[in-house]
Amino acid sequence: MMTIRSFQGRRRTVLAAFCAALLLGTQAQAQPDPLPSWNDTGPKQAIVAFVGQVTREGSPNFVPPAERVAVFDNDGTLWAEQPMYFQLAFVLERVKAMAPLHPEWKDKQPFKAVLEGDMKTLAESGERGMVELGLTTHAGMTTDVFTKMVTDWLATAKHPKFQRPYTELVYQPMIELLAYLRGNGFKTFIVSGGGIEFMRPWVEKVYGIPPEQVVGSSIKTQFMIRDGIPILLRLPQVEFVDDGPGKPVGINSHIGRRPIFAFGNSDGDLEMLQWTAMDGAALRFAGIVHHTDAEREFAYDKNSSVGRLDKALIAATERKWTVVDMKNDWKRVFAFETK
Amino acid sequence: MMTIRSFQGRRRTVLAAFCAALLLGTQAQAQPDPLPSWNDTGPKQAIVAFVGQVTREGSPNFVPPAERVAVFDNDGTLWAEQPMYFQLAFVLERVKAMAPLHPEWKDKQPFKAVLEGDMKTLAESGERGMVELGLTTHAGMTTDVFTKMVTDWLATAKHPKFQRPYTELVYQPMIELLAYLRGNGFKTFIVSGGGIEFMRPWVEKVYGIPPEQVVGSSIKTQFMIRDGIPILLRLPQVEFVDDGPGKPVGINSHIGRRPIFAFGNSDGDLEMLQWTAMDGAALRFAGIVHHTDAEREFAYDKNSSVGRLDKALIAATERKWTVVDMKNDWKRVFAFETK
Repeated sequence: MMTIRSFQGRRRTVLAAFCAALLLGTQAQAQPDPLPSWNDTGPKQAIVAFVGQVTREGSPNFVPPAERVAVFDNDGTLWAEQPMYFQLAFVLERVKAMAPLHPEWKDKQPFKAVLEGDMKTLAESGERGMVELGLTTHAGMTTDVFTKMVTDWLATAKHPKFQRPYTELVYQPMIELLAYLRGNGFKTFIVSGGGIEFMRPWVEKVYGIPPEQVVGSSIKTQFMIRDGIPILLRLPQVEFVDDGPGKPVGINSHIGRRPIFAFGNSDGDLEMLQWTAMDGAALRFAGIVHHTDAEREFAYDKNSSVGRLDKALIAATERKWTVVDMKNDWKRVFAFETK
Repeated sequence: MMTIRSFQGRRRTVLAAFCAALLLGTQAQAQPDPLPSWNDTGPKQAIVAFVGQVTREGSPNFVPPAERVAVFDNDGTLWAEQPMYFQLAFVLERVKAMAPLHPEWKDKQPFKAVLEGDMKTLAESGERGMVELGLTTHAGMTTDVFTKMVTDWLATAKHPKFQRPYTELVYQPMIELLAYLRGNGFKTFIVSGGGIEFMRPWVEKVYGIPPEQVVGSSIKTQFMIRDGIPILLRLPQVEFVDDGPGKPVGINSHIGRRPIFAFGNSDGDLEMLQWTAMDGAALRFAGIVHHTDAEREFAYDKNSSVGRLDKALIAATERKWTVVDMKNDWKRVFAFETK
């Protein structure tokens, strides 16, 4: 005898199966190209083949959704990085904004070089100069205030070549790739040498990547209660440099899983690519964006001071990683391109 | 004139709406209590009322799903922590396992105390002794090897009072709470003073929390290629202590968003609760598990050396945070309880 309860249960199952079939049917009808800004060349084919392998149940290379971790460098991989890292443009503007309170900077390097727009002397100040500028402009305020500084700057600053907001200089093919991976059960992460708190205020809107999926360089913070209000104060001390051999360390610290898919564009991404791709005999994807398009973007590699690509390109050749030739493999670079 | 294309589009819309209505209808029919191990007392009512407020669109306290971050301490909040932190039991076993290779430990504290089972002398070695034991047992191997050590230990170790695997000593009401929050669009995170790599191997299976949503204390790691294979080597240096004022720092570093819901059980959770609850006039939830049940679990608070609860309980009273009286508010503590 069928009870009412079991009849309801069975009816629910039948309905659910019916609905699933209908919806699947309509989905199968409409399958637009998920990567329309990619030419149908090697890199696109390699990406689609890889995703097909790891998502097809029963495939020897099947990876369960929880383990589908994809990591992306940011500068030069998801958005442009020339003629200087965009975070450096932010630093330079902050120095100028703070200068009235620091009259001594007129005679003190590397501040003097910034205020005089003397990029040659600034470059000569090297890593030590950059760290000093970074700590001076990124510390001494609460995390909330810093977030607002970044947001305000991005709202008005323009890229010198394109005369557009920096957040429009994101690569349209990579935006499509991020969405394509997420549509196939991947969790997408940024793993960047840039400041973690410099990226978080805008990457969710621009890339669809939430703040908890951002790994980056950081300075120390300290918790305190000030005037009855809990704050996190940003301290002028480097905490972590998420670059080169730091990237696998940052991945392990923040994600706690080894990625199966990684994209970078410079020697600073080499170790991240090795950590991802050299995982025994497992099928893994490692990709490099090679900046070959001086007309639509910039052309540079091993002789560039920003985003230098040399060792990682050699490794890619040796290990048959995927190298994107921007000029040939991308139908368009930026969403704002008209043609 | 209706084209075939627009007809198909319309048919798809109608079908989708029809299916959604059917499936919603069947869901509305069956609504079992999501928190069956909680008595219908203050804490359960406060949790359900809070979740209702922040998830109801149009409510002045509505919080978009992306911002529904819930954080939980682990030891004493999600699983038991008496008579000693379970990670300490792991440390003691590791010392014994390593002892044959370290004959000098027979005469060297705090190792001598561990090998002789002299818990009084061990306790007297204080924080310095604990750090030395921790670094000795947690460093010097790859991350993969350490994960296996933890997994192997958990598979055989038993709790001294309950004679069950430690992973069965998780609080059933909290398992239900985690699932209830996730069912309401929350992302659940662990924020624990325990080792991040000690928790990650098992929390996904036990709590449904993936490794990338675990924040904890850590030692440094270093990337290297050894015999052609990339590894992360665990170094004997403390990197981060995720306890007390470290918890808001860890939350900011890993999550990058301020939680709207937090649960702890000791003074080590005070700052996390402040950071969560004292967020202007916004509706926030802060909860404390008060261990009042000597029969089913343990009874302890301000005089305990493990999980001391004093200042946080005073703050909870002052600020009207939710305090769970384990004995009165939980119908059962562990899943294995028969009654």
